[in-house]
Amino acid sequence: MEHWLNKRAALSPNQIAIEMEDHSVTFLQLQQKSQQFARQLDNLKPNGHIAILSDNSIDMAVAFWGCTYLQTPVVFLNTRLSRSEWQQQCNDADVGLILTSSHYLEKAKHLNVSVESFLKVKKLTVNEVPLLDEIDAEKVCSMMFTSGTTGRAKAVQQTFHNHWSSAVASSLNLGLLPEDKWLVCLPLFHIGGLSILIKSVIYGMPVYLLEKFDADKVHQAIMKSAVTLISVVAVTCSRLLERLGSERYPDSFRCMLLGGGPAPKPLLEQAKAKQTPVVQTYGMTETCSQIATLNEKDALRKLGSAGKPLFTATLKIVDEKEECNPNQIGEILAKGPMVSPGYYQHKKQSNEWLRTGDLGYFDEEGFLYVVDRRSDLIISGGENIYPAEIEEVLLMMDGIVEAGVTAEEDKQWGQVPVAYIVKNDKQLTTDRIKDYCKDRLANFKVPKQIHFRDQLPRNATNKLQRHKLK
Amino acid sequence: MEHWLNKRAALSPNQIAIEMEDHSVTFLQLQQKSQQFARQLDNLKPNGHIAILSDNSIDMAVAFWGCTYLQTPVVFLNTRLSRSEWQQQCNDADVGLILTSSHYLEKAKHLNVSVESFLKVKKLTVNEVPLLDEIDAEKVCSMMFTSGTTGRAKAVQQTFHNHWSSAVASSLNLGLLPEDKWLVCLPLFHIGGLSILIKSVIYGMPVYLLEKFDADKVHQAIMKSAVTLISVVAVTCSRLLERLGSERYPDSFRCMLLGGGPAPKPLLEQAKAKQTPVVQTYGMTETCSQIATLNEKDALRKLGSAGKPLFTATLKIVDEKEECNPNQIGEILAKGPMVSPGYYQHKKQSNEWLRTGDLGYFDEEGFLYVVDRRSDLIISGGENIYPAEIEEVLLMMDGIVEAGVTAEEDKQWGQVPVAYIVKNDKQLTTDRIKDYCKDRLANFKVPKQIHFRDQLPRNATNKLQRHKLK
Repeated sequence: MEHWLNKRAALSPNQIAIEMEDHSVTFLQLQQKSQQFARQLDNLKPNGHIAILSDNSIDMAVAFWGCTYLQTPVVFLNTRLSRSEWQQQCNDADVGLILTSSHYLEKAKHLNVSVESFLKVKKLTVNEVPLLDEIDAEKVCSMMFTSGTTGRAKAVQQTFHNHWSSAVASSLNLGLLPEDKWLVCLPLFHIGGLSILIKSVIYGMPVYLLEKFDADKVHQAIMKSAVTLISVVAVTCSRLLERLGSERYPDSFRCMLLGGGPAPKPLLEQAKAKQTPVVQTYGMTETCSQIATLNEKDALRKLGSAGKPLFTATLKIVDEKEECNPNQIGEILAKGPMVSPGYYQHKKQSNEWLRTGDLGYFDEEGFLYVVDRRSDLIISGGENIYPAEIEEVLLMMDGIVEAGVTAEEDKQWGQVPVAYIVKNDKQLTTDRIKDYCKDRLANFKVPKQIHFRDQLPRNATNKLQRHKLK
Repeated sequence: MEHWLNKRAALSPNQIAIEMEDHSVTFLQLQQKSQQFARQLDNLKPNGHIAILSDNSIDMAVAFWGCTYLQTPVVFLNTRLSRSEWQQQCNDADVGLILTSSHYLEKAKHLNVSVESFLKVKKLTVNEVPLLDEIDAEKVCSMMFTSGTTGRAKAVQQTFHNHWSSAVASSLNLGLLPEDKWLVCLPLFHIGGLSILIKSVIYGMPVYLLEKFDADKVHQAIMKSAVTLISVVAVTCSRLLERLGSERYPDSFRCMLLGGGPAPKPLLEQAKAKQTPVVQTYGMTETCSQIATLNEKDALRKLGSAGKPLFTATLKIVDEKEECNPNQIGEILAKGPMVSPGYYQHKKQSNEWLRTGDLGYFDEEGFLYVVDRRSDLIISGGENIYPAEIEEVLLMMDGIVEAGVTAEEDKQWGQVPVAYIVKNDKQLTTDRIKDYCKDRLANFKVPKQIHFRDQLPRNATNKLQRHKLK
């Protein structure tokens, strides 16, 4: 296939590709900027993959598309991680160069990896190197880290074919209107953000891009900038509805795609009362965003469901090895062309089905209800937090013998992590533990509360029973 | 991928799949009927491929989808061909069984192939045989005959992947609206008809199906049955505009897709004057319908153009072996996932580019203008007629020494074939020649006029110069 951005620039040169508050670029401009960036990047000849560390911006989009012209997989780093987490991920994903916005330059400079700012790259010589004009669908386009249940984060490989299939399957479900404009306030380093950037080029659809989520800015954009779709998580959805107050969104605003974990029923009821077209979806980094989405037609009738698997996707619910009956809860398994071929430097799953670790069931009509994300996953403001990762850090601290982390409900963030600890050092305080964590973990992963216990609940095989922590 | 019809029936069971004047079926019903048909078909165990010979009907659609459950390529026979042409095509495509509507049963019975009516099959025992639940994308789904420049018709193989890619590429260009309903008045045995039937299942979109083109019925359907898209050829487009008179189509009617050959400029001007959203397209049996289509946004600005190649398709214009510059006419070459892998029982083209034989050029903005379909192709009421095929028949007749066939403009059909003949039998009359042709050729291929000449124009190598016939 021709390179998507070249093709789109040829088909819709003057169509707006990315609109921000103060400026915008057309597809032709995006192509030219990205190609130029690629030619400038050639000067740096990184020894390894390229990582991007940035808040949402056109520069970030240009850097991403620029890398596609060099067929270099882009490793997306979460801006909220700690320095040691970045270092770990760069090591694990063989990153040879980090591209970053000026904002993160200082922080990133202390890493043991080459770092350049977007600004700096844009001042380099434009080398006349050949750029890719065909996309090799099976090649890896992007990598994003996800922890899974095992603690240490792994890099999910997303191929061009994964992204393509995701965009096509989404359009077959949500439709594709000539006036569509998708607002992105999720970080582009999350699949929920990046997938829209890619859809934009495949669909020829403008993206309204915000640097980060801001309830007021999103509200204004929906009310005044002809936005028709937006992707949100429960926390941001809730804040938007609060900001909406007694107002109503315009009729042209057709879809608030709600992902990133099961949605609280009261939130959905509230959206319904405000005639806001909230559509629940289920997906993850490994499925390149949505794999099941509720159709607008069924949104009210099936409140709380994540809908049916997209046209090219298949899901099944299994209990041990048997397939579950309707209304019977089991683990959700996924299959389809949007499912990642595997984790970087990890053995490929031999099974063609992706084991999501999430729990759910189908009703009699085949609508999916997600009961719980990977049993012990904590979702805080749309960010996935894996207890095992925090426990690992805690257990490295002198004076801590046992550690268990679990979720606590939180009004603002949905959930926050709290820790239960068995210590053998009487002097150890919660403040010292939090400080220790802050040096090693992203802020949102630092336990909000720390409880000391004499022992932690464990099962017969001594496995920690996180659901019994209290 | 799951079988498309199973998947669609699971996603949109109660959505209308096919609507006809007097009855309609939902996707669930279409699935059930097709699966039952497949199980009944199992009784016949045809020794070879299955052909379908029918005017448009739900039975015909059911027969087609039924065959997909048995992974049997369906050979579509043009109802307007002569008996000897049917026989030839059945031989060439290894047809072991013809399925037909009652209307064609008598005619087909005289062929040297098993024949069963849809009605008869529907009375057979329903065998409990396993049906395909996964689609093997690379398998051949359908075959349709096209003559090319060489005379004898060849069966174009269309894989499931070809059809899938065509449907996806079309939706990325035309968009996909929840209220879309596509009217099919082209025969389902043509790719322009079949492709909509397949889109219907992939998109979850109702098709409004007419047995055949009827200006009044189409008009009424657009005016009163919420049709949003229709595929037409120049002749039917013209008749619809005539029928429209001083009326206007509803605003919800968004696209009259005009294919099947270059459109006369006056027709496009007329459509423009009547605010009819005519969108020109370029495609052929070998590309599973559209490969380039004018975007609605550019329809008026680029009147007469067939638009730009669809997102996944690539076209180039070549003169001898070099690529042409903008505005320079050459042969159109096509590439993309919707391009057929080749003709049945013919050596695969070694080149990855399909040589269309059609002439055209790109303007400076990359819009395609088709100047002429395969130099000597005659397009009569949307049907392709290859002069070589008629000449071959003429030359078999005693008393005819030389024969040349070319197109003559015709008010009703756009073009009709006329023959130029050198005879060595003074008694030979035009009536006897026409009768001879009628026994061997479809009616629309029988030369409308026959002119006797002493010699035919030939070039230095004695090749017939059809463009000089007069």
